[in-house]
Amino acid sequence: MTVTGENILAGVPAMGAGKTFSALNPVTGETLAPDFREAAGGQIDEAAEAAQRAFQSYRRLSGGQRADFLDEIAAQIEAVADPLIARCGAETSLPVARLKGELGRTTGQLRMFAGIVRDGSWADVRIDRALPDRQPLPRPDLRRMLLPLGPVVVFGASNFPLAFSTAGGDTASALAVGCPVLFKAHTAHPGTCELVARAIGRAAERCQIAAGVFSLLHGGPEVGLGLVRHPLVTAVGFTGSRHAGRALFDAAATRPVPIPVLAEMSSVNPLFILPGALRAREAAIAQGLAASVTLGCGQFCTKPGLVFLPEGPAADSFLGRLELVFESAAPMPLLTIGIQRAFVAAQARIIALPGVAGRASTAAAAVAGAPVPHTGVRPGFAVTTAAEFCREPALGEETFGPFTLVVTYASDEELDNCLQSLAGQLTATLQADEADWPQVEELLPRLEQMAGRLILNGFPTGVEVCAAMNHGGPYPSTTDVRFTSVGGAAIFRFVRPICYQNFPANLLPEALRDALSPVPRLG
Amino acid sequence: MTVTGENILAGVPAMGAGKTFSALNPVTGETLAPDFREAAGGQIDEAAEAAQRAFQSYRRLSGGQRADFLDEIAAQIEAVADPLIARCGAETSLPVARLKGELGRTTGQLRMFAGIVRDGSWADVRIDRALPDRQPLPRPDLRRMLLPLGPVVVFGASNFPLAFSTAGGDTASALAVGCPVLFKAHTAHPGTCELVARAIGRAAERCQIAAGVFSLLHGGPEVGLGLVRHPLVTAVGFTGSRHAGRALFDAAATRPVPIPVLAEMSSVNPLFILPGALRAREAAIAQGLAASVTLGCGQFCTKPGLVFLPEGPAADSFLGRLELVFESAAPMPLLTIGIQRAFVAAQARIIALPGVAGRASTAAAAVAGAPVPHTGVRPGFAVTTAAEFCREPALGEETFGPFTLVVTYASDEELDNCLQSLAGQLTATLQADEADWPQVEELLPRLEQMAGRLILNGFPTGVEVCAAMNHGGPYPSTTDVRFTSVGGAAIFRFVRPICYQNFPANLLPEALRDALSPVPRLG
Repeated sequence: MTVTGENILAGVPAMGAGKTFSALNPVTGETLAPDFREAAGGQIDEAAEAAQRAFQSYRRLSGGQRADFLDEIAAQIEAVADPLIARCGAETSLPVARLKGELGRTTGQLRMFAGIVRDGSWADVRIDRALPDRQPLPRPDLRRMLLPLGPVVVFGASNFPLAFSTAGGDTASALAVGCPVLFKAHTAHPGTCELVARAIGRAAERCQIAAGVFSLLHGGPEVGLGLVRHPLVTAVGFTGSRHAGRALFDAAATRPVPIPVLAEMSSVNPLFILPGALRAREAAIAQGLAASVTLGCGQFCTKPGLVFLPEGPAADSFLGRLELVFESAAPMPLLTIGIQRAFVAAQARIIALPGVAGRASTAAAAVAGAPVPHTGVRPGFAVTTAAEFCREPALGEETFGPFTLVVTYASDEELDNCLQSLAGQLTATLQADEADWPQVEELLPRLEQMAGRLILNGFPTGVEVCAAMNHGGPYPSTTDVRFTSVGGAAIFRFVRPICYQNFPANLLPEALRDALSPVPRLG
Repeated sequence: MTVTGENILAGVPAMGAGKTFSALNPVTGETLAPDFREAAGGQIDEAAEAAQRAFQSYRRLSGGQRADFLDEIAAQIEAVADPLIARCGAETSLPVARLKGELGRTTGQLRMFAGIVRDGSWADVRIDRALPDRQPLPRPDLRRMLLPLGPVVVFGASNFPLAFSTAGGDTASALAVGCPVLFKAHTAHPGTCELVARAIGRAAERCQIAAGVFSLLHGGPEVGLGLVRHPLVTAVGFTGSRHAGRALFDAAATRPVPIPVLAEMSSVNPLFILPGALRAREAAIAQGLAASVTLGCGQFCTKPGLVFLPEGPAADSFLGRLELVFESAAPMPLLTIGIQRAFVAAQARIIALPGVAGRASTAAAAVAGAPVPHTGVRPGFAVTTAAEFCREPALGEETFGPFTLVVTYASDEELDNCLQSLAGQLTATLQADEADWPQVEELLPRLEQMAGRLILNGFPTGVEVCAAMNHGGPYPSTTDVRFTSVGGAAIFRFVRPICYQNFPANLLPEALRDALSPVPRLG
């Protein structure tokens, strides 16, 4: 399993014609071999044209055939699990246990979508049969189902190098419904991307699927924008920063033919500790919060980055506990030196604001003689008041990494003012005991409008992959609140309806024919 | 039932603070009393804030309560049917029979959505129960459903003054799911809008629903853009011109918080006559085409504005028949003098193009001494070749009114070239006999990607309101190919998912509780 540094254009490895770059080991700071080269404009065209050609055959495969392809991708990834996890670990510094779990999540997602397309009910078939004798006008036979949009651009996410990257959720949901994928590799784990792309290529070959169904392109923002602006591209899936996500959204919206961008961007995931819960479970909540903030070194989109805490002695004790846990943490490597620099700078900015007190230094210091990772930091937090929070919009913005801001409030009114100033979120979490339920009932309507997932007495990290999951939310947490990027309903990301009027069975797609169908349908 | 010329802001009539305008009778050219005044900025704020307040209670009503409201709106419209149709006829020149039919369609749509929300399955409830013993990690209880987005701006369409205006499809689907509506009245039928808005107001009063659930605002593009840019607005529904639709889309996409725009804009609805069908049914197809092109004086979004005809003697005979039918038509009034001028100018431009021959003059001339309506025109068509069509992009654009362009083709290759140059469409129609089926099979994949509804041996006008309908299509026919504006699936226009994790029954929305539910759901 050699990484060559090439793009994979419709199954064919091809060295990029653009700039050279390489992956870095975040722990050692060393450059990893080999060099990669960015795709050039002509290579984007080549991949897009191959995707469009492949679309013509791929979209007409049965659900079962596409499901077999997804299952085969999962099997091909498992077949290279050891070298894949080794390369991914070197590129990301993520521990083996985490990467094994993430690999299982990745193959699990592929198999979940395989199950959904095998079942077929996702296509929302609706049949209204002809009423030739209806007065004053007869009704024609009308049959409707969902179809794939066309070639989709997917961007790899830095923080899930497997589950939200090459064969991650966006790719799986696009391939499931019949959309070819043009995948923009992440520059922080390009070798991981290449290994998975090669596994997808082998799966396509074994399943005799047109190789254009998947291409991997290396590159930075220019390659990404080139893909989003390509006339053959019909939709975009993205997970990353707010700045990059909005740039892609703007590029897509200003195309001559605008296309949907499903970008999951930034969220501070507010967590509300209510007085009863704080009294009853102060230590457990502090422990759980610390674990959630530091999980994956704070690089999860659902990290609780904002905590609302009622003022008082219990709050002081809570903050003391949090400080103890954070200060005893060893330095952990962030995914890239760029993330580390942004993290350190963002924290410094926050702590320098008036009325904000930094707690638990995040500087990476050697502990017991162990070496400090190149991108190492320690978890930290800061404390401010509700009044300061409402005054300073910067306090409501995401800091990517193991940091959280605690806002203390003196009254329900203060909490209410804070709520007013919060933007759209992926999640909102309540720590509340039965004594707090009247307040929960007050807060719920606001939280429902602010966030895509509400959690009671839990923590937002740990996004279950299941039918009921919603991983999405109002802007700026995503660019389109109407879709989830995790779970079974992500099948609706890249589809559109079509209606056939007055067609005989032989000219209809199989799913719309009268022949007995095991698929539940309306009509 | 007096029309006063006022805006209706959260149930309260209020004369606009902006410019004065009035409605015109398209037949006589006379100004209709009273004067109307455009809403000013402060009135937009007032309506939006009332909508946001109403949203808090309205969205929490049961499906049954919202259904009762929709049914009551239908009843209140029926109660004023006679004065409503009289005013609407004066403002639009549409005949009484058509308006009676459209009123029935309007109330039918309201009752259809009432039925859908009473049933409740639209909310796509998904439940994944807790698995506390799962290894390595327990699964929390997860429950997901669809919720309303929030206040929605709806624009009245000129060509359906009832069914796609004040209480039309967009308003009905928004109110059905729990979204308040800010309705921008159409300047060509403002009195009709006012009468329907008053009916909605009476229905809200009878059902004890917060009056802010619906406001009517008069005005032009500035009022429209003011509404789309308002921070409390969460989505937009529009039917109208490509120019106006794209302007609204651009305004929404460049907001600090972008919002979805569901705009149905322009479509030429290509109709393909295949050789076998032409041989077998030349006269019937010509008759049907003429009826479809002239229905509603050509002012339907599904009017077949482009016809592909195989060259030869049958084509000549077909064109002769079309000319006879068109030339014998009496002048008919278009909806507004603006539409008439644009129609005459567009036709003149097309006919002046090299290689295009005008057939059947569209000039409105008196027939047998009958008076010529102020906005009167006659139906016309033009003929060109496939080669000219491929050369001149302007030939692929919509002409709103009773006009169609016939493109003759000499070979399958020429037809194929034409197909390549076609943009996204609401519909594509095939006239094909069994002898043509191999060619239909060739064409279908292209048509599926080009259009939202495919019709075999019918005509695209006459959009059935039913579960299986899809009225939408790739850009520029709409700004979002993923949604239909007609039929049961339009319920998905203004909703988003939300997930509740680990909530006890008493804190969950009723639809997500374990109590036996008659609503089908996943999980």
